[in-house]
Amino acid sequence: MDKLRVIKIGGTIIDDEAKLASFLQAFAAVEGKKILVHGGGKLATRMAEAMGVQQQLVDGRRITDAATLRIVTMVYAGYINKNIVAQLQSHGCNAIGLSGADGDVIRAHKRRASIDYGYVGDVDAVNAELLTQLLQQQDAVVLAPITHDGKGQLLNTNADTIAQETATALSASFAVDLVYSFEKSGVLLDINDETSVISSINSSSYAQLKTDGKIFAGMLPKLDNAFAALSSGVHKVIIGKAEELQELIDGTKGTTIIHE
Amino acid sequence: MDKLRVIKIGGTIIDDEAKLASFLQAFAAVEGKKILVHGGGKLATRMAEAMGVQQQLVDGRRITDAATLRIVTMVYAGYINKNIVAQLQSHGCNAIGLSGADGDVIRAHKRRASIDYGYVGDVDAVNAELLTQLLQQQDAVVLAPITHDGKGQLLNTNADTIAQETATALSASFAVDLVYSFEKSGVLLDINDETSVISSINSSSYAQLKTDGKIFAGMLPKLDNAFAALSSGVHKVIIGKAEELQELIDGTKGTTIIHE
Repeated sequence: MDKLRVIKIGGTIIDDEAKLASFLQAFAAVEGKKILVHGGGKLATRMAEAMGVQQQLVDGRRITDAATLRIVTMVYAGYINKNIVAQLQSHGCNAIGLSGADGDVIRAHKRRASIDYGYVGDVDAVNAELLTQLLQQQDAVVLAPITHDGKGQLLNTNADTIAQETATALSASFAVDLVYSFEKSGVLLDINDETSVISSINSSSYAQLKTDGKIFAGMLPKLDNAFAALSSGVHKVIIGKAEELQELIDGTKGTTIIHE
Repeated sequence: MDKLRVIKIGGTIIDDEAKLASFLQAFAAVEGKKILVHGGGKLATRMAEAMGVQQQLVDGRRITDAATLRIVTMVYAGYINKNIVAQLQSHGCNAIGLSGADGDVIRAHKRRASIDYGYVGDVDAVNAELLTQLLQQQDAVVLAPITHDGKGQLLNTNADTIAQETATALSASFAVDLVYSFEKSGVLLDINDETSVISSINSSSYAQLKTDGKIFAGMLPKLDNAFAALSSGVHKVIIGKAEELQELIDGTKGTTIIHE
């Protein structure tokens, strides 16, 4: 089976021009087939402020209303996605940037929940056939966290979820490593100590870490998603610092999560 | 040779939600291979106003400064491109939307002129190989008028030019019809009379119409570009009303321009 790396870039890196440029140079140099999934950063919030669009909150949760959807579509699928692709091109990495609507690559439905989250999409299907074709033709695919419902509606979707669903869907045809890269060095034993990285976690050590209360609450959803991905056929999940991308891939830095 | 239609949608249609929806339904129904090239409409201007970005003019010409480039990238390659693609998907047309940076599909250079136009790109190369592959895999390709220079810089490029260059580049592998659709019924003998459409123009009748001063000045660049496209291998050029797309393709409405 061919190796595929699905790499999520998130956190504050996307807002830091120099760090993003350096990350993209490292991404361009990663060998083999690869998909980059990017989040949105703070630009959408700044744009909304500049345009006088108020952030909607219901029960303390962010709502994607029509005005916010318009902004995130512009910022995520337009500005960020196209600037990432143009930079990758400058490093000789022939990338193609897509939203979920393009080629019906990620179809979703408007979230059904007790709270109306607005135009938020939960993923139904990833078009593995198209992604496989594009991975044969291009050096990389770059996915923006915007999906569609097949009925003409664009939807705002969590980028971690896009990465996980994409990695899972492609596990039938590739040996997939899923890399979550952000500003932290990995899963930390002490949230204030960047040297306290847990280098490897499996199902049983994860249970023990949780029992001992050693995992920072904010990291739990990421780890639960990681184990869900592993259960669905993803080979391994790696969490770590965006500035250390090649080391994460080599397994010399960050936290590697495997099933057993 | 397989038939290919490169269809430009421009003018005020892009700002009119109902007319755009109706056009996209007609586009989805067009048989055979097809590429849609869209302009920007007035949304970018409204966005710039909302964000307090001043329109830069030098010697009466619009300049694309860095702030304006950011806005047109968001609006053209993000909002408009992705909404068009999502609507086409809802009509069963599996379209893929691209900027010129995606897959290196349209490479350009920053315009060299006595006026500094800012981040405006003149096209160097269209990636006919990628477009040909995508036309085999997808029902349509949708191109936004944003290009890149291969060195990481996005550039604002005229959508008519994108349509013409794309049609020309694909003429080696397809019998290409290039359709310019907008709010007028075609090339008019009397600019105030929508029934005065000239149904057919060739090189010699064009020379005569120009000599007689019968062509509205604003139409001359479009017609000159049309003849340039025909000289470069495009089969025919059709100019007419967006609401009459199928009739334009059938040759029953609008103005058809052929070489001889």
